[in-house]
This record gives sequence, structure tokens and C-alpha cells, in this order.
Amino acid sequence: MLELVDLTVKTEKEQYKSEIALYKKQLILLEQEIKEKGLPVIILFEGFGASGKGSMISKTISCLDPRSFMVYSTAKATDAEKRMPLMHRFWKIIPEKGRMTILDRSWYQETARAFLEDGISEKEYINRLDGVNLFERQLTDDGYLIIKFFLTIDKHEQKKRFENLMDSKVTEWRVNRLDIKRNKKYDKYYEEYDGMLNYTNTEYAPWNIIPSNDKRTAVLAVYKALCKSIRAALDGSKDISATVKGRAVEMKQFKLLKMPKLNEIDLSPCLTDEEYDKLLEQEQKKLSKLHSNLYARKIPVVIAFEGWDAAGKGGNIRRISAALDPRGYEAVPVAAPDKHELNRHYLWRFWNKLPKTGHIAIFDRTWYGRVMVERLEGFTPESRWSMAYQEMNEFEDELTCSGAVVLKFWLQIDKDEQLNRFNERQNTPEKQWKITDEDWRNREKWDKYEVAVNEMIEKTSTEFAPWHIIPANDKKYARIATLKIINEALEKRMGK
Amino acid sequence: MLELVDLTVKTEKEQYKSEIALYKKQLILLEQEIKEKGLPVIILFEGFGASGKGSMISKTISCLDPRSFMVYSTAKATDAEKRMPLMHRFWKIIPEKGRMTILDRSWYQETARAFLEDGISEKEYINRLDGVNLFERQLTDDGYLIIKFFLTIDKHEQKKRFENLMDSKVTEWRVNRLDIKRNKKYDKYYEEYDGMLNYTNTEYAPWNIIPSNDKRTAVLAVYKALCKSIRAALDGSKDISATVKGRAVEMKQFKLLKMPKLNEIDLSPCLTDEEYDKLLEQEQKKLSKLHSNLYARKIPVVIAFEGWDAAGKGGNIRRISAALDPRGYEAVPVAAPDKHELNRHYLWRFWNKLPKTGHIAIFDRTWYGRVMVERLEGFTPESRWSMAYQEMNEFEDELTCSGAVVLKFWLQIDKDEQLNRFNERQNTPEKQWKITDEDWRNREKWDKYEVAVNEMIEKTSTEFAPWHIIPANDKKYARIATLKIINEALEKRMGK
Repeated sequence: MLELVDLTVKTEKEQYKSEIALYKKQLILLEQEIKEKGLPVIILFEGFGASGKGSMISKTISCLDPRSFMVYSTAKATDAEKRMPLMHRFWKIIPEKGRMTILDRSWYQETARAFLEDGISEKEYINRLDGVNLFERQLTDDGYLIIKFFLTIDKHEQKKRFENLMDSKVTEWRVNRLDIKRNKKYDKYYEEYDGMLNYTNTEYAPWNIIPSNDKRTAVLAVYKALCKSIRAALDGSKDISATVKGRAVEMKQFKLLKMPKLNEIDLSPCLTDEEYDKLLEQEQKKLSKLHSNLYARKIPVVIAFEGWDAAGKGGNIRRISAALDPRGYEAVPVAAPDKHELNRHYLWRFWNKLPKTGHIAIFDRTWYGRVMVERLEGFTPESRWSMAYQEMNEFEDELTCSGAVVLKFWLQIDKDEQLNRFNERQNTPEKQWKITDEDWRNREKWDKYEVAVNEMIEKTSTEFAPWHIIPANDKKYARIATLKIINEALEKRMGK
Repeated sequence: MLELVDLTVKTEKEQYKSEIALYKKQLILLEQEIKEKGLPVIILFEGFGASGKGSMISKTISCLDPRSFMVYSTAKATDAEKRMPLMHRFWKIIPEKGRMTILDRSWYQETARAFLEDGISEKEYINRLDGVNLFERQLTDDGYLIIKFFLTIDKHEQKKRFENLMDSKVTEWRVNRLDIKRNKKYDKYYEEYDGMLNYTNTEYAPWNIIPSNDKRTAVLAVYKALCKSIRAALDGSKDISATVKGRAVEMKQFKLLKMPKLNEIDLSPCLTDEEYDKLLEQEQKKLSKLHSNLYARKIPVVIAFEGWDAAGKGGNIRRISAALDPRGYEAVPVAAPDKHELNRHYLWRFWNKLPKTGHIAIFDRTWYGRVMVERLEGFTPESRWSMAYQEMNEFEDELTCSGAVVLKFWLQIDKDEQLNRFNERQNTPEKQWKITDEDWRNREKWDKYEVAVNEMIEKTSTEFAPWHIIPANDKKYARIATLKIINEALEKRMGK
């Protein structure tokens, strides 16, 4: 792609002045529409060293309201960031609706450069590029606009700029030995960047290659692309101003396990008090040891609980957490999203709660609310929740690939058992807080929920993150069954 | 204080069993009340090495709903954390209303130990203790309950525990050379901890010293204190179960500058276009250089803007940001707080937006909303907003002491000028978004606001963070005046 732009073009000062004034006026008006219509925008700048990313960002934002955007400068990942999945730090900074995030380098920081300089394998390199495409697709599917710029200069121009920077005391710190090395190996970088650009030039987030030998030409090109892309996104049209048409990317297909329907689950298994006490002690001891072990081996674990109201999620979680060192896990209760959460991609709040390496996060209700309550209550249109099965498989795939163990439990009880528990809660003072009108309303929709849950289990039971349907009419049995599955999964992972 | 507890007391198993069962039942019910009444609770565990903090936390939370609390384990500050004021990482984790944060070590990590081991000066040590007292007072003033435990064991017991830990492969990693050294210098630590405990044993957050040679005795003591303290807090009573009555701490008195009233400000200063263009270029250039400089010297800067609607905050901020490297500053627009923000201390959201070292944060509206809109619209009762003057002086004092430059601007226009600008906005299509019904409503309350603003300026103009009242009837004059003040302040700081 890099060969497509003409680096020799120059723009005269007068022409620049008149054109830039018009673009700026346009952009100011577009910025207001972005706010009004609640469009979330991500603008990222990548490019060769000394291609002028920093000053380009300054020029781009010079006419914008500083309150409507945030500039994020991507450095190498810190040690704390390295304890999270690769895309974690970028998920964290996606803008709210109506706001812009502007990136000086971005998630591309750790693709081509990492391949050339940090010695990641070709396979890992491709994985990262796939991860980038997926990230951008998930965001654009959710209505985000992503505008990507790659600033290109030729080898000679780069060398000249490095030399100029080194000539002044004020700027010499901006050039390091690595930059000089990069200039010498310009052709290698050119080739690798070109491959990266082609691979990630997708229909939903294509690249704008900006010829940057001449600064005025570059600034005009950036402004033009910004205005065109934002206008198109606001109009809901797909006509975006990219260097070449983006390619279609096939979604990863996940092999799904054959799962039983909820009504096929045998709910009769139960345990005596004696069996339970013995097994509980045994499994908790085992889990306790495994927890120290995975802490030492820096393995993150995600445990996700779903199930009918009163199915016993809380009690189950407590039996797990009792075996854990409290400094190494976090229980994450998931309630209805708050405004700042609703204003972002629905996975954002879960990305923010992921465990770091060696830690366990136990989710009490999860991202699957998307295809249950959000579906049935009409909070999310079908066009979006129906995509969620794929998105959640991708999300869990990402977690697994980053080294995490992902365990999902559905606690299954029948309708009679739920009624018994509701009544018991209603009639026991210290349990009354557990039962609300909403629980009774949900109960009336049991059949609709059952359809949704069956579909969810069918479509999101992957090999790496299958649903475990736990017969939970007997609380004791359910707790032990869950603990056993966790222990087996951790043992298996540790054995690897 | 440490000498007040009897380390020889032992609790028999039978007695323990019956008592702990009762406490657990109590605590479960209290937990529900905490949720219902929205009490935010912080429970922290400090103590000698091997005094059993970790297992105490496990035992404390064993009967709690894992969804109602978060355990935070305090390690040494990371490099990223060191780029923020000392208390920043603790402000970040304060609980929402109705939730608990449980800390394994806490802000005390960096007091006595840092004094004994990291060689901080005695003055710095006292500063930190004062900062701790202030932090705890600000939170408890806002309705937080802070329960502090110090687990104490004697030298002999500590030695025995270290030896036991070292005897097993599974636990030997938990003991390091430093621990052994600490045991040898037990008396020194004892003395220093005792001093720290006395100094921070305040009436609003007193210590519970827990004799921990005998584990059962310790657990019972912790449970007892928890139940008593929570009960008292829920009842709104001050009868808390501390080892000794906490001491009264005097608030820091700030020397206030004599400030003019708003109506005494001469609003006539103005600039010609020529003067403005020349001065703007000159001051922006200066600022630009200063920004690189403070980046290199790792000085953080907080710039706070307040002023009448349409006084020109946005335009002013844009003239500042235009001179800055976008990777080194952030503009922070402050709107009405979201639910998760309202559920925490009002300063929480500002702590979360502080600049790291070398960066600039520009706040468009600020924490002073507390004594303006929150006061006048009745969002906050007088008992709370009237405390805010002191709290904000303390906040800015903390920022200044941590090395930051704090600059506060009030943009002053008169009522006629505001009307002109409102009308202009109303009549210019690309400016209409800037004017809302709320602006007109606020305008009707001009006189009340003027009283509030005068009081605010009078009470929060400290030597380290005075208000700069900028005559802003002429936008050009105001922009240059602001830039000049910023440049002078940065030059002065850099000269130090």
C-alpha cells in the first residue's frame, strides 16, 4: 500500500492557507454533530519515525474543543500492563459516545515493530494482527468510528529529520540509537509496515496513507480524510475516504460442543450432609493449594456464574472464595450498567475487571446478560445482541490465548425449586433482601428465558470455554460439582 | 498503645466456637444493613510481619457475601504509582456506598516502615502521617466508616512463626531476609509502630490493637470490633470500640490572601488585534518551551478554570492547549457527576484525573462545583458544602506538597457582557450548541452565585493556590492574561 502515495507532491503556502481554513470550519461543525449524535470516534496515528505524528496531532486538534477529546500516547507496555491481555490497555481508553480518543501510536505498536525488534515469532505476529482486526471490528460493529492514519516519509527525508533533531540541544533527546538503526534498515521496515497495513486494511477500518515528506500536503490529507470519514459515519453511510478499499475479513469460526437442553438435565443428584462436609473440605483444600500454585505460575483465571434467580450463585461463590487467599482473587458482582458504561461498548466494563496474571476473578453474572436480560427486556436491539454470541466467543478466545483459564457455570434448578426458595426467602427475615419484585417478574418470563439460555449455551460452548450446566436443585451437590470442575480444570492447566 | 493489650490471653476451642458463631450471624445481618443504608466501609489490617493478617482477612470475610467487598493488597508503589501523589492509589480504591474495601496493609505501608527501611526523613515521616490523618478525616466526614486493626505479636512468637514458615517448601517463599532482620530489630519496630499508632489514633478513625499471639483470641477480637463499629456507624452514634479513645486532631490552618470582591474588578482592560496576535505568539512560544522543560523535570501541573457561563473558558483553554504537546496534557471537562461518582467522596473523581509527573491537567470546571452549583441547587446540604473550603485547601495543599503547580482562574465578566454573548450564541448557527436553557436559568441566579463565588474566592485563596480573577469582558485580554500567569508560575517553579 505504501507505494500508492506520491511523496513528491508539494503544496504551496497560499493554497494550504485557503484550504486548511475551510477544512477547519468543517471539522468544528462535525465535532458538534459528533457530540449531538453521540458518535464515539477513535483516531490513530502511526508511521515511520520522524514522520511527524506528534506535530500532526497538534495540528489536528488545534481547532477542536479540548474537552471533546483525549490524546493517548502509546509507550511500551509497563510491567503492570504486561500482566493483562495485550488489548487490555486499549480497551480501557475507548471513548464514550460523543467523544474522541486520539492515539499517538496505538495497538499497532506491538505488531510490526515488535516483530522486527523484539523477536516475537511470525505466528505470534499474525495472531496479534488478527487480534487487532477483531478489536477494530468489534468496536465498529458497535457504532465506533475508527480513522487510521499512517504517515510515510522516504529514507532520505527520515535521515534528514533525525539529523536536524540531533543538531539542537532542545530536540536531540528525541532521537536515540535505535532510530538511527531503523533509518539504516528503512527498507526492511518499509516492507514489514506495508505487510501490516495490507493485513489490517479492513472494510470497517481501512488505512489512510499520508504522504508526509511535505508537511502541508500531509496536514491537508489528514484533514480531508477526517472530514470525509466523520461525515460518512454521521450519515450512516459506508463511503469512507481510504487509500484503497478495505478487505473483507472472515470471522473466526469456533467449533461448538454439542450441549444438552436445560430440560434434559437430571436434577436429582444430591449429597448427604456427611458426604458434603467431607467433600467440601477435600475440594477446598485442593483448590487452596492450586491457588498458590497458579499464583506462582502467574496463570489468570476467570470464573463466570450464571443461573436462575435463587439458583445458588452466591452460596457457590462463597464456597470457592473461602478456599482462596483473599489477596489473590476478586468477586465481581455485575448489576445493570451505569451511564458511563452504557456509553461504551458493552464488553468494556468486563475488560476493566479482568484478573491480572496469577489472580482469579469470579463474576456473579456476566457479559452474557447481553443475550438474556438485554435481549428479553428489549434493552438491546436484535441486530446487536445476535452478534454477541460470536463476540463473546472471541472475547473468551482472547482470554484463553493470553493464558487464562475460563470457566463458565450455569446453575440449573427447576421452577418448583425456585418457588420454594423464593418463598423461603420471603419468609426468613435475614434472607428477605435477596428477593425483589424483579425476581417475581423474571419468574413469569421463565419460558422465554429458557429459550434464550438454551440458545446461549448452544452457541457459546466452545472447546476452550464450554458451559458447565450444574444440577442445582440440591445446593450441596451443586457446590461440590462446581468445585470439582474448577479443580480439574486448574490441574489440567497446571499439568501443561 | 501496643502495651495496652495482653498477649498472654488464650481462648479455648469450645468458647471460640460458640462465640464466633454468634458474631458471624451478627455480621451477616450488619452486612445487609450496610447495603440497604448505603454505608461505605473501609477495613484495614496492619501489623507485625507474620502476625497473621492474610489469614485474618480470610476468616473475616468467610461469612461475608463476596460481592459486597473488595480485598486490596498493598504492595510497594509501582513506578507508575510513584508518578502520582502518595495517596492517589488509595483514593482510587475507596468503596462506593454500601460496599466494603478490605485492605491487607494500607496507606500505613509507607509511614513507619518507610521511615525505618527506606530512609525517609523524620519530617517527611510526620508529613505522611499528617496526610494519613487528613485522608481518614475527609472520608469519615463524608460518612465513610474506617475500621483499623493492628495485629501485634511478641518477638518470640514472630521468630517462631518465621521458622515454621521456612520449614516448609510450600511456605518458605513467604519469608525473606528482611523479615529475619525485622525480627532481630523487633524492639525498634515496636517503638516506631507504637508512635505511628498513637499519632494516627484519631477520634474519627481510632485503632483496634489485636493481641495475636493466640489466633482464636485475635479472631474474636476482630469480629467483636467489627460488629461494634459497624453497629455504631449504622446508628449514627460515635460509640466505637477502639483500644483507647482517639485523639482530636487539629485541622491545618491555611493563611488566606486578601482578595477583592468580584464587583471591584476593573473589566475595562482590552487589547487591540495587533497587540493580541503578537502577545499570543510570544506567550505560546514561551509556554511551549516551559512544557518541554517541566516534562523533563517531571513537574505536574494542575490548571483549574471556573467562571460565569460564556466567560470564555473554552477559548482560553484552547489557547493554552495549542501551545502544548498533546501527549503531555489532558483537558478534563467536568459535568454533573455520574451515579458511580455520586456514590463516592466528591473528590474521588478529581483524584482520578490528576496529572502524572511532567504532565498538565486542565480542568474545565472543577471541584469548586461543590460550593457553587451544589450549594445553590441544594444538591449538597450546607453541613457538607461548608466543610468543602477546608477540604479543597487541603486537597490543593497535598498537590502542591507532592510537587505540583496549582493554578486557579476565575474568568470574570459582567451581566451585560454575558447577555451579549448569550444572544450571539443564540443567533449564530455554529455556536447554538453552546447555549442551553440551563444557562438562562443560571443567569437568573446571578446575584446568588456572586455571593457564593465571593465566599469561595475569599476562603480558598491560599498562598500556594490563590485564585486569579481575570477580567474577561475582552476575550483577547483574558487569554493573554491567563497565559502570562501560567508562564510566570511555571518559570518561578522551574527557577526553584
